[in-house]
Amino acid sequence: MSDLELSSSPDFSPPSIPAFDDDAADAARQRQAELTKPPGSLGRLEDLAVAIAGLTGDPRPTLADPTVVVAAADHGVVDRGVSAYPQAVTRAMVRNFAAGGAAVSAIDEVVGADTLVVDAGVDGPPVEVDECDGDDTVPVVDERIGSGTDDLSNGPAMSRNDAIASLEAGVRTARTRLSDAGIVALGEMGIGNTTVAAALTAALAGADPDRVTGRGTGVDEETRAHKVAVVERALSRNGLDGGDDGDGVGAGGDGDDADEPTDAVEVLRRVGGYEIGLLAGVALGCAADRTPVVVDGVVSGAAALVADAVAGDVRPYLLPSHVGSEPGHAVQLDALDLDPLFDHDFRLGEGSGAALALATYRAACRTHDRMATFTEAGIER
Amino acid sequence: MSDLELSSSPDFSPPSIPAFDDDAADAARQRQAELTKPPGSLGRLEDLAVAIAGLTGDPRPTLADPTVVVAAADHGVVDRGVSAYPQAVTRAMVRNFAAGGAAVSAIDEVVGADTLVVDAGVDGPPVEVDECDGDDTVPVVDERIGSGTDDLSNGPAMSRNDAIASLEAGVRTARTRLSDAGIVALGEMGIGNTTVAAALTAALAGADPDRVTGRGTGVDEETRAHKVAVVERALSRNGLDGGDDGDGVGAGGDGDDADEPTDAVEVLRRVGGYEIGLLAGVALGCAADRTPVVVDGVVSGAAALVADAVAGDVRPYLLPSHVGSEPGHAVQLDALDLDPLFDHDFRLGEGSGAALALATYRAACRTHDRMATFTEAGIER
Repeated sequence: MSDLELSSSPDFSPPSIPAFDDDAADAARQRQAELTKPPGSLGRLEDLAVAIAGLTGDPRPTLADPTVVVAAADHGVVDRGVSAYPQAVTRAMVRNFAAGGAAVSAIDEVVGADTLVVDAGVDGPPVEVDECDGDDTVPVVDERIGSGTDDLSNGPAMSRNDAIASLEAGVRTARTRLSDAGIVALGEMGIGNTTVAAALTAALAGADPDRVTGRGTGVDEETRAHKVAVVERALSRNGLDGGDDGDGVGAGGDGDDADEPTDAVEVLRRVGGYEIGLLAGVALGCAADRTPVVVDGVVSGAAALVADAVAGDVRPYLLPSHVGSEPGHAVQLDALDLDPLFDHDFRLGEGSGAALALATYRAACRTHDRMATFTEAGIER
Repeated sequence: MSDLELSSSPDFSPPSIPAFDDDAADAARQRQAELTKPPGSLGRLEDLAVAIAGLTGDPRPTLADPTVVVAAADHGVVDRGVSAYPQAVTRAMVRNFAAGGAAVSAIDEVVGADTLVVDAGVDGPPVEVDECDGDDTVPVVDERIGSGTDDLSNGPAMSRNDAIASLEAGVRTARTRLSDAGIVALGEMGIGNTTVAAALTAALAGADPDRVTGRGTGVDEETRAHKVAVVERALSRNGLDGGDDGDGVGAGGDGDDADEPTDAVEVLRRVGGYEIGLLAGVALGCAADRTPVVVDGVVSGAAALVADAVAGDVRPYLLPSHVGSEPGHAVQLDALDLDPLFDHDFRLGEGSGAALALATYRAACRTHDRMATFTEAGIER
């Protein structure tokens, strides 16, 4: 965390998040010792099963109905030329998710997860499911906060009310549409949102913009340097560059520069996005229901940073998946103390890496629940 | 490879293995560029899909019916006190596999794989399926070479005919029972077989016994040191310590020391095991049928080394899964040029790591096959 004062906003009340259940974890640890394998031989899978027991409060968690929530929104900052793709691709990809034609659709099929597609504020009218054309079409949930954010390099991305509304939409999504899910993975889509994620990561993890800004969809090094400048300007214009401390960031003397924000909601408001606020809310709502949340790439990582800054109690419920090739991702994982399960050089988002990691979490809990004990198998130790 | 002369045995004719299909790989690479994602954004998954296209000769491989073959056998070397578990546990675990109560049973369920259990030579009579008691009992295939090997620290583990028979049993298993499998993972069970794997790895990868001998099921450091001595003695007694070169290994002057082996079958005969020979044969038979083979831990890694030494054409068909905590495993992966997909500190065997990796391979091929192209999704690039 930066040295900003990040207290809970008086305007957004995060749901109450239960503490880790040590008794359930202890019972799970004891069961692990009785299963038909040398103690410790399933390595990290054993630790994950014990951790999930403590999070869920269930000594034999089953992770029923794993779900990948893919939240989409647009970003005014695309006007600054930060992406290799035009804004219309966000909408087209939402249709693709609904029609089952995206990468995350295929990975969800393999790992046995449902896909929940949420329109958090795609540019234009709500995305209607009858725009989509596929054999396995899934609905698009309307939790729209607006029709794309404003350009964060020119002032706040959204109003404070909209920032709060995005968090509340996420909590609502978790507690109504994800209440049966035993584990939830965070996914997203939004042309321009790696720029937004970089700004949030710089602000919330106290990192240098150059260190956390990558090539996103695949821009060249020149455009990446431009992205860094856009992020620096966004931080400066929104009072997130560490203040008038003479550090040279943000070309001082701009009378429009805002005061430093007083809470995490204000950071989200100034340099966030609707889908990121919604995913942060999903994390908070899932944690309130004792549902573990798997973090995906750099954009869902930014949402995890927001959730953590809003309510630090969420932290134990945030589980790692991969470390991607966007440089800000490793910074986020470090800030959140998450040790990735694999590194496949992903830089897609959508929840693709978190979805793949669901196989590992399911394997951890299925071995834990299904395996015979030595006694059951009639094996003397 | 060591500097031994490892030509194919005149007595075992490996099946003919097709070359990598560059046209299928090129077609797959072209398709990857058309799918609805930024080029390269699925990282290693894209490379895996292209590789599997080249191996299978199918530009859109589907990996139908993924199967984990778990071969079990016993080892005379257990008399030397190298394991924390008694020999009877091999048989009990075969029953556990058949009954669906083992770790690999649970992981196979999660990744959508079948389990094929093979008795390659468990001590005692054939393992009958009616000994097993479970809701999802699967058959135990009888491909028994014998009733456990001889103690390899005291001479050859088996006869040359049995070594050849174990390879042939594996090829037969692949070509009859695994012919519908789109991908096969190698798993095993056999109390004492990490000692056998260490001897094979030292002989075939030219590594020092101390470097490739680990704690197996969980013996203490004192017992590990004893294992190292047993492996050194096995190599010396079987002419696998680099000859009479005065290196001090094997307490020179023992008139029983054998001549250096002339081929890989002979190495298998002297310091191998039935399940390891069978798995090497499975790898050769699968490769002959253009079926990719996923290597698991240090014992299936030893089988992969044997297969590679018998017929180097198998190499491209050998795919990585994890790197485990047995120290010989990394040496094997290095010798086979396999880059692991993950490191979860597994040291169980059974095919557990390879089974979990099937989720990654399935995700690679399912994204490749199912995703919409930009044209199909109506997205302009």
